[in-house]
Amino acid sequence: MSKKRIGIVGATGYTGSELVRILHNHPEIEIAIITSESRAGEKFSDVHSSFYGINDTVLMKAEDVKKEQLDIVFLALPHRISMGYVRLYADFDFKIIDLSGDFRLSTPEVYKEWYGTEHTYKEGFKKSAYGLPELFADDIRQSSLTANPGCFPTGNILSLAPLLKHGFIEEKSIIIDAKTGVTGAGVKASIVTHFSNVNDNFKAYKLKNHRHTIEIEEKLSIKSSTDVQVQFSPHLLPVDRGILSTVYARPTSNFDASKLSEIYNEFYANAPFVRLRHQPPTLKDVRATNFCDIYFTYDERTNNLIIVNAIDNLVKGAAGQAVHNMNLMLGFDETCGLGYVPVNP
Amino acid sequence: MSKKRIGIVGATGYTGSELVRILHNHPEIEIAIITSESRAGEKFSDVHSSFYGINDTVLMKAEDVKKEQLDIVFLALPHRISMGYVRLYADFDFKIIDLSGDFRLSTPEVYKEWYGTEHTYKEGFKKSAYGLPELFADDIRQSSLTANPGCFPTGNILSLAPLLKHGFIEEKSIIIDAKTGVTGAGVKASIVTHFSNVNDNFKAYKLKNHRHTIEIEEKLSIKSSTDVQVQFSPHLLPVDRGILSTVYARPTSNFDASKLSEIYNEFYANAPFVRLRHQPPTLKDVRATNFCDIYFTYDERTNNLIIVNAIDNLVKGAAGQAVHNMNLMLGFDETCGLGYVPVNP
Amino acid sequence: MSKKRIGIVGATGYTGSELVRILHNHPEIEIAIITSESRAGEKFSDVHSSFYGINDTVLMKAEDVKKEQLDIVFLALPHRISMGYVRLYADFDFKIIDLSGDFRLSTPEVYKEWYGTEHTYKEGFKKSAYGLPELFADDIRQSSLTANPGCFPTGNILSLAPLLKHGFIEEKSIIIDAKTGVTGAGVKASIVTHFSNVNDNFKAYKLKNHRHTIEIEEKLSIKSSTDVQVQFSPHLLPVDRGILSTVYARPTSNFDASKLSEIYNEFYANAPFVRLRHQPPTLKDVRATNFCDIYFTYDERTNNLIIVNAIDNLVKGAAGQAVHNMNLMLGFDETCGLGYVPVNP
Amino acid sequence: MSKKRIGIVGATGYTGSELVRILHNHPEIEIAIITSESRAGEKFSDVHSSFYGINDTVLMKAEDVKKEQLDIVFLALPHRISMGYVRLYADFDFKIIDLSGDFRLSTPEVYKEWYGTEHTYKEGFKKSAYGLPELFADDIRQSSLTANPGCFPTGNILSLAPLLKHGFIEEKSIIIDAKTGVTGAGVKASIVTHFSNVNDNFKAYKLKNHRHTIEIEEKLSIKSSTDVQVQFSPHLLPVDRGILSTVYARPTSNFDASKLSEIYNEFYANAPFVRLRHQPPTLKDVRATNFCDIYFTYDERTNNLIIVNAIDNLVKGAAGQAVHNMNLMLGFDETCGLGYVPVNP
Repeated sequence: MSKKRIGIVGATGYTGSELVRILHNHPEIEIAIITSESRAGEKFSDVHSSFYGINDTVLMKAEDVKKEQLDIVFLALPHRISMGYVRLYADFDFKIIDLSGDFRLSTPEVYKEWYGTEHTYKEGFKKSAYGLPELFADDIRQSSLTANPGCFPTGNILSLAPLLKHGFIEEKSIIIDAKTGVTGAGVKASIVTHFSNVNDNFKAYKLKNHRHTIEIEEKLSIKSSTDVQVQFSPHLLPVDRGILSTVYARPTSNFDASKLSEIYNEFYANAPFVRLRHQPPTLKDVRATNFCDIYFTYDERTNNLIIVNAIDNLVKGAAGQAVHNMNLMLGFDETCGLGYVPVNP
Repeated sequence: MSKKRIGIVGATGYTGSELVRILHNHPEIEIAIITSESRAGEKFSDVHSSFYGINDTVLMKAEDVKKEQLDIVFLALPHRISMGYVRLYADFDFKIIDLSGDFRLSTPEVYKEWYGTEHTYKEGFKKSAYGLPELFADDIRQSSLTANPGCFPTGNILSLAPLLKHGFIEEKSIIIDAKTGVTGAGVKASIVTHFSNVNDNFKAYKLKNHRHTIEIEEKLSIKSSTDVQVQFSPHLLPVDRGILSTVYARPTSNFDASKLSEIYNEFYANAPFVRLRHQPPTLKDVRATNFCDIYFTYDERTNNLIIVNAIDNLVKGAAGQAVHNMNLMLGFDETCGLGYVPVNP
Repeated sequence: MSKKRIGIVGATGYTGSELVRILHNHPEIEIAIITSESRAGEKFSDVHSSFYGINDTVLMKAEDVKKEQLDIVFLALPHRISMGYVRLYADFDFKIIDLSGDFRLSTPEVYKEWYGTEHTYKEGFKKSAYGLPELFADDIRQSSLTANPGCFPTGNILSLAPLLKHGFIEEKSIIIDAKTGVTGAGVKASIVTHFSNVNDNFKAYKLKNHRHTIEIEEKLSIKSSTDVQVQFSPHLLPVDRGILSTVYARPTSNFDASKLSEIYNEFYANAPFVRLRHQPPTLKDVRATNFCDIYFTYDERTNNLIIVNAIDNLVKGAAGQAVHNMNLMLGFDETCGLGYVPVNP
Repeated sequence: MSKKRIGIVGATGYTGSELVRILHNHPEIEIAIITSESRAGEKFSDVHSSFYGINDTVLMKAEDVKKEQLDIVFLALPHRISMGYVRLYADFDFKIIDLSGDFRLSTPEVYKEWYGTEHTYKEGFKKSAYGLPELFADDIRQSSLTANPGCFPTGNILSLAPLLKHGFIEEKSIIIDAKTGVTGAGVKASIVTHFSNVNDNFKAYKLKNHRHTIEIEEKLSIKSSTDVQVQFSPHLLPVDRGILSTVYARPTSNFDASKLSEIYNEFYANAPFVRLRHQPPTLKDVRATNFCDIYFTYDERTNNLIIVNAIDNLVKGAAGQAVHNMNLMLGFDETCGLGYVPVNP
């Protein structure tokens, strides 16, 4: 069978380069086109020097995507930019996986409230699926537009969904203390990502108003049919990759500590990328892979539930999950091309 | 006036070297003796190469302390070892500042429960003061034995004491998500502190049972006359120095958001090392200094109080606070010798 | 065709875990046995937590290797230990790839001089091939015992061989200033690898007497039929993986700057893992891959040749090169199972 | 005696903040004015948050310097900008210490060749002293304009001067392999200083043409009355502060290995900030101090001299050396205000 042809729009960022890293060895597809508005005409390896001799494709313009016969296109673009391309490609035959935040939320109104900008392709909300395969695989398989989840929501939704499904925790008691590597802030140089502002340092940021708050609340509310509210506090780690979140929640009267393992095991029985751990995971346990590692425990002394989860923000939190979604949308085995072993150390 | 003579017992660890770093430029004291059981006979700068040409004192045995005329002795030793020296020096004329955990808790029984070992100098509990100057300065001034606080308790007690004093938060709702640099684990090589296990990595550890939990609970309970309970979760950062903690608590009906700044400002009006910040601090804001930076905010949406605090674990969390205690115990100005500016970057 | 069966002796170190990481996805082999004397009976994933759910093989004893039908065995052991196992397995049918330094040098006498210990299996020297495929592929294909090169020699021999072959540089003018990541020092906790001794720090070590000096000199001398001498200065970087070396040499009167590119291109025309770069490579350009990136330039002003080379010490400098050797020894395509893309960032 | 009044022009960079860190505790001076064209009107602590509560001075314009009665002004500005201010302040009564590269070289012509730009204040060259106190103290004491040395030249000139003075090394055989922390690249965000391009990474840059090459050559040539040529290769370390250089040179027939220690000891007998070490120094041995640590050794096997030197690029390589120069220019004890102990770890 001939390989499926895919396109990547937006080559200069980390999600772009990570998509090529993962897809380069995917047995069922070929990368037909990679685009960059700012670097068109140069080679992909001019932009990302580690690809020298591996992928020396000449970068095209996003317009050129229309000339190719493609099965799927990944949009590796910033939010606000991405919606324009979804609209531009709306009448074409290929499916789209959007790695930005433009189609993750429920409505254009919620989008405006949290992203502070009017949405310019409101029709997209109706047809998009939320690309978290462990919870929404059926939607994803049938969708022509998948909104790849945010990096913070991925691990935290997966950590909380089983507990909320069983009514084990109070839906407004949730605190998520999240710590992310610097690649989450993107490839662009800024004072925030300046080496000496990050190295040997640590800080909290965007307390109370990070956009991923509403994404977590909405998806968990849908899945649990309750009105979930979370206190979400991101912090910046002096590491390249990875998000580790420590989650706290109060048990309800429904809670049964003896069934904690059972409900998680059952919930993720068929989830090849969720690993339920007996010890809290570290970032390097999942580095450069599509795994989400989850550890949970109950503290009798304080009556709190504590869940620790770890992902690689560029893989399970972005490009890897996007390839997982592609596998579902094109009918491949869901683990196809994603069998990487963690790079540790 | 002649300088006071001080001794340091335990030269090889980080608290030992940090004491010498700070005391080297203290105008009112001279370091009369430094001891190490394992390295006696060698120079201090043989153990800590950065002191070459700065402090080349020959290391003595702890027994030799008895022969010196000293005003104060710092014990920079592991817990369980330290109590033996407090007993050994009990009849001598000098005062003692113990940097270990041996005399921080209320009773030998509580000590046994959390440290897992029988205390061998129970008399010490009665005479020891808890060396957190912002809360216990009067006790410290009068004491001949001061128990220097743990690194995690320091910033977190300071963050919560004003709120509890005013009955602003529910005393059992407190969650402390703490992140520490590696020097908190000591100078000794171990698999935990192996570079490649820490670098570009992050993890939670000792969830539910870290010894500093009880220290925080006891001191806050004493100060607030309530029964404080905290969920304390330490994490290991890939940085050398510093602890940053993010604290969550539920307001009581007493809480008045409009008075939040006022109560903190009033509480720390005369505390030269507490800086109340308008933005969340970073670790480098306090690096190599005795400052404790505190930021507080209330989230109306979720009805949570969030407090972020940062210290240098080796200074405000150990050696600097010990020198602060020394200043109080010997009658110097409390900031004497502690006027360092943060090393940033 | 059935898969070849391989064994790995020595599971606890970085070369052991890296072999499993690479071989896990190798299409032509299966890992039949992994051993560890100290951790036998535990799972491989108990020792290396990132392998949880990926490789949960129970670790065996080295003795158990004899009971298996194997095609090849990797020895991922320290030098001095390794030679004993080569002897132990001498009469067995499988081939051996030794990742230690025990069989890299020319004679037991040279070994004793540089390693400071008597060799206990002198017969091994005659039958071993030096496992640098770009220079010794024919030897390796025919050998039953391959001595995998040292991490420092790999990139530096590859950098200098073309120049020496053409008589372009004075054979005693060579200076190699090498900088290595911490994993080169092994998995074992030590004061050298303690996080706070490495992080935000840098140092030279073993100036004038590092063992890899003689390995570089011997192999280059053999290949160039001259008497090569190098000044080799290793330094310790605060990074996990990678070696970057900057090499200086004086041109001879034979030197022709206009032919520099030509001789390198010709020399490595059929070397899939050598990438000749137009810009100096960085460590992340090769991270987690088997590439050796080489950049060369001539400074007319000073009349010096400068060559910069970069490898991942755990891959091209150890496990990856070992798999490359295995491919040659078992008759697979030489790139088989080694098509990894650099993990950057 | 009243304190001397000093000004700092250029507050936003690392040399600016480091000057304030050091001068804050200097007993003989007061900081009368700090300027910034881009941030005038804001507080110094708004720009550098770690100074909150320590130095909250309102930033002025460089023009305002003229209105103050000052004894000395530090220019903490980029090259090309700095020369304009030296001209602007030429007729004023205060002395100037310029931390840029604008007045370090011998003539405007050499400046143009290496800095690629016409110099606009050529008169400055005649009156400026080169601010390396160990070699040019007399010039500095008498000068009204001191050009503070570059970070790379500082340690390397100090390492080579004694050898060249005694004719111990061939003046064209010198190779300097230098490794610097990221703060050397300045405070401004750029792709070079982006965290993920530096962290866990390492690279060479500006091989053959770094501007500090000529500065090293000129000063060593002047001092040794020979025509010194160096191969200078800078590399970028994933650390904040510090430069460690490994220097190689060929001995002349004058060389006497038995006198190596003697000539260094004699040369630096009265240099309080040069520490001659018996072991190669690390970066943390000098961190946040004005020390230059030097280690030297001769390799009989290869007939090479090897010298390793380490400084903190922001202190001995910039602000600390500037304060040292100020002490000489204003007649203070040369160590005044510089008695910091290394911050390690």
